Amino acid sequence: MQTVSENRAFGGVQGVYRHAAQTTGCEMTFGLYLPPQAKRQPVPLLWYLSGLTCTHENAMTKAHAQEHAARHGLAVVFPDTSPRGDGVADDPAYDLGQGAGFYVNATQAPWAAHFQMWEYIATELPRVLMANFPLKEDRQAITGHSMGGHGALTLAMRLPGRFASVSAFAPIANPSASDWGRKQFAAYLGADESAWAGHDATLLMREAGFAGPVLIDQGGADQFLDLLRPEALAEAMAARRQPGVFRMQAGYDHSYFFVASFMADHIAFHAQALGQ
Amino acid sequence: MQTVSENRAFGGVQGVYRHAAQTTGCEMTFGLYLPPQAKRQPVPLLWYLSGLTCTHENAMTKAHAQEHAARHGLAVVFPDTSPRGDGVADDPAYDLGQGAGFYVNATQAPWAAHFQMWEYIATELPRVLMANFPLKEDRQAITGHSMGGHGALTLAMRLPGRFASVSAFAPIANPSASDWGRKQFAAYLGADESAWAGHDATLLMREAGFAGPVLIDQGGADQFLDLLRPEALAEAMAARRQPGVFRMQAGYDHSYFFVASFMADHIAFHAQALGQ
Repeated sequence: MQTVSENRAFGGVQGVYRHAAQTTGCEMTFGLYLPPQAKRQPVPLLWYLSGLTCTHENAMTKAHAQEHAARHGLAVVFPDTSPRGDGVADDPAYDLGQGAGFYVNATQAPWAAHFQMWEYIATELPRVLMANFPLKEDRQAITGHSMGGHGALTLAMRLPGRFASVSAFAPIANPSASDWGRKQFAAYLGADESAWAGHDATLLMREAGFAGPVLIDQGGADQFLDLLRPEALAEAMAARRQPGVFRMQAGYDHSYFFVASFMADHIAFHAQALGQ
Repeated sequence: MQTVSENRAFGGVQGVYRHAAQTTGCEMTFGLYLPPQAKRQPVPLLWYLSGLTCTHENAMTKAHAQEHAARHGLAVVFPDTSPRGDGVADDPAYDLGQGAGFYVNATQAPWAAHFQMWEYIATELPRVLMANFPLKEDRQAITGHSMGGHGALTLAMRLPGRFASVSAFAPIANPSASDWGRKQFAAYLGADESAWAGHDATLLMREAGFAGPVLIDQGGADQFLDLLRPEALAEAMAARRQPGVFRMQAGYDHSYFFVASFMADHIAFHAQALGQ
């Protein structure tokens, strides 16, 4: 693992690191914020999964997470959203290929060779993080924005016991019924829709739910409401009696100004679930 | 004036606007954050001047100012750092020409035609802001980073009564004795150094000081310490008995992670001076 940069931030360190990943068969870059408390002892870890077109860098600079993470003593990891590089398959569309991994393990050509983002986030990156940084493996939580909200919700529900809490900002909530989902699942997972169900937060919520608190924020003026389908997830949460809060935030759009506006709430929510 | 974008943020609005500027003879773009309090009544205005290579956009997304501005009821304006466009003179170096206006009125060719940033910030942009937004003209404060810290300090000291308070993050503190200054002042203002003195915060502090509180933050691990010359300003402040605080922040570098880390303090400082 190689250190790309380290900047002091809010008394802690905002680092960027690179490593040769086996799951994705390429170099992967991630950001990790360690709060000041990590100088003395291991700290809990919050995962932040990013949306379409993002790298590790967008949320690290725009989500305003570090200030609140420092206050509550949480580390925050900002993974990349896909494998990258010249040898990695890509597509001219912004919503397929590099920058659009959708947090699945691709089974179809040409994607299967590198697009193993589920495995990377669920298994390989946690191992790298726990081996190299003062983090508490048994104290993790997860959040994300848009495609990253989809990733956070699906990982949380399908890895029971891994995360104490899950939240999302404007998640792609029902991808198997949306053009943000059907196109990508067909490409990565093939035409058989039974393979898609494990990657649809609404279907997973109906099926299994989450054994902890859930917080969803959705902007009421989001320009992608039709693609996100928040109503499907809200219905599924309520129908299941899932402990949690779904907030429709009037006037907010899909941008990082929306994410930043409610980051303090999300970090406080996870800190409480993690006993911080 | 044309609206480029408006995003709801922390209950207020982060806008980006463009207008044909007479002082600089080109289209100028600026960001303006209006806090929620501005829906009911005019609010005080904090100026944030940016550093070399920046546009209006860097601080708007990376400085984490909006959250604290919303709490204290301050508007924040993020001007561009120079005139821009195909018809505007430029230089291949990152520290001269477009993105490097240094907040002076150029008198030398080829710069004089457009590089009138002092006049733009001191006269024209305030007029545009006061005419179009609910702002209190008699309640203004100013801050900035690096080259923008230089701008904030020089404008504050040379426009007595305009700003209630001034602060800076890692300002270019003594440009007439630095390679971040001598090169640019020679190009923009000519070889006669007497024309430079009005644009050197250390010299102005020795000469006149500031009739209000001053807050300076400087990273102790800043990679540009030799160019910034904070020791000259610290000496001048102490020698003058200038009311104010100069903080050397151990371990912090020149990045926006440093700026963001202390933004809460700076906004609270200005809010207090503005009676918020």
